[in-house]
Amino acid sequence: MKVFKNIDQVKHFTSLIKSVGKTVGFVPTMGNLHQGHVSLVERAKKENNIVGVSIFVNPTQFGPSEDYNKYPRTIEADMEKLEKAGCDFVFVPEVDAIYKDGGNSFFVTEKTASTALCGKFRPGHFDGVLTVVAKLFNICHPNRAYFGMKDYQQLVLIRKMSEALNMGVEVVPCTLVRDDDGLAMSSRNSYLSTEDRKKALKINKALKAIKESFEKGNNETDNLKKIGLSVLVPDVSVQYLEILDANDLSSVENASQGCLVAVAGFCGSVRLIDNIIL
Amino acid sequence: MKVFKNIDQVKHFTSLIKSVGKTVGFVPTMGNLHQGHVSLVERAKKENNIVGVSIFVNPTQFGPSEDYNKYPRTIEADMEKLEKAGCDFVFVPEVDAIYKDGGNSFFVTEKTASTALCGKFRPGHFDGVLTVVAKLFNICHPNRAYFGMKDYQQLVLIRKMSEALNMGVEVVPCTLVRDDDGLAMSSRNSYLSTEDRKKALKINKALKAIKESFEKGNNETDNLKKIGLSVLVPDVSVQYLEILDANDLSSVENASQGCLVAVAGFCGSVRLIDNIIL
Repeated sequence: MKVFKNIDQVKHFTSLIKSVGKTVGFVPTMGNLHQGHVSLVERAKKENNIVGVSIFVNPTQFGPSEDYNKYPRTIEADMEKLEKAGCDFVFVPEVDAIYKDGGNSFFVTEKTASTALCGKFRPGHFDGVLTVVAKLFNICHPNRAYFGMKDYQQLVLIRKMSEALNMGVEVVPCTLVRDDDGLAMSSRNSYLSTEDRKKALKINKALKAIKESFEKGNNETDNLKKIGLSVLVPDVSVQYLEILDANDLSSVENASQGCLVAVAGFCGSVRLIDNIIL
Repeated sequence: MKVFKNIDQVKHFTSLIKSVGKTVGFVPTMGNLHQGHVSLVERAKKENNIVGVSIFVNPTQFGPSEDYNKYPRTIEADMEKLEKAGCDFVFVPEVDAIYKDGGNSFFVTEKTASTALCGKFRPGHFDGVLTVVAKLFNICHPNRAYFGMKDYQQLVLIRKMSEALNMGVEVVPCTLVRDDDGLAMSSRNSYLSTEDRKKALKINKALKAIKESFEKGNNETDNLKKIGLSVLVPDVSVQYLEILDANDLSSVENASQGCLVAVAGFCGSVRLIDNIIL
């Protein structure tokens, strides 16, 4: 497994791979890898000749009061997991290399789907995400990039960005991976106390309760949300619980098959997100 | 000379060129080509194996009260000039092909140098410019792209964007081309009445007067601006006359060699820009 710190090196390597007609699958991450990330690498490995992973805790997607400094950095364990998953190259740039301009100048921004869900509560977050992914795509020019459905809004925005800006990267949505107890895997789960982790299980339970009611014929969004909230409150301090069009995150009058149910909330001081497709 | 209307075709063509190790020089234009554009094509031809030009009147860079609808479209004359200049391919996409999303969703935006000069008076203009150029770069993946120094702020922003977003396109600044009478060439000159055209000559005269005074030892920006304004007023209705750092368009206390002197103003209803480097 090759490890690149330098932009020009990884650029040269991937362009060489592509020049001989081989395909590059790419998994951008912030490290602290769990089985969710590993499943992305494994899928990319099946569908491409060469698989690369970037590990970069991106400062521009964190708000001033968010957890950029304490975000878990576990590079050695990450490398072992990637080696085992069959990853061919890892790109671990420094912040200064990615943001030569200080990171406050050029942004890729979106004005519709980015304002829903997490976008309401994390101003600037998706500008940071889109910008760093645009840079990484421009550096590695992958044929395909793999994103988990846990960060559903991120996935929608990146897929739309690649289309809208003609980046030519196929953005592949990948199944959300859960722990055995149903909690959606997230690097931020490591912040949870034992007690808060128990409370966090209500998130998946609430989503399942909504889906069950929908499958019994209930399509009233307000009523479905009430059912979810009754499971969540008071253990989860809910930031949002929304039922939206899964393609563009626009509002829907009634729930229908394929709609997205997305939730964000705090367990203790830890913000968690999860979702399910009806 | 090949003519492409379709994004996939031009993408395929340019990637083929590059896959055999040849270089692509690219000149994005809005058509209505004059000698300034032709000089870009000729320079690109000298420095690359293959030269392409895009002709696309980009709606997102025009304000609601600006001249998008009446912007001169002269496609047949343009084609003749390009053929003569040795252009290898022309890309003439439809608006719907470039803006599948309606053009109001994803933008590349900049928050510092884009707020100076024209950015103050044309809100959203540079978001539109940067976004369409990002798309065109992503479609054609040129080795080099050629921009005239007449649109100096545009040139600075696109050069910085290519670096900041790791686009890998070398942005080449090219000499401003003037008519024999000194008027900077611009597609918008065709809007000028005979009388207004005479008035417009004051713009270049004012820039020259500033440069002459600077070369005699005057480096006081306020005084230099006064000298320029005394030439411009009342024939040109001045929007701005600024002396700035030519690299990042930041303010300077005193003028020094290499500084940019930039002016925008109206002659009749026609908005013209021009600049000179000290």
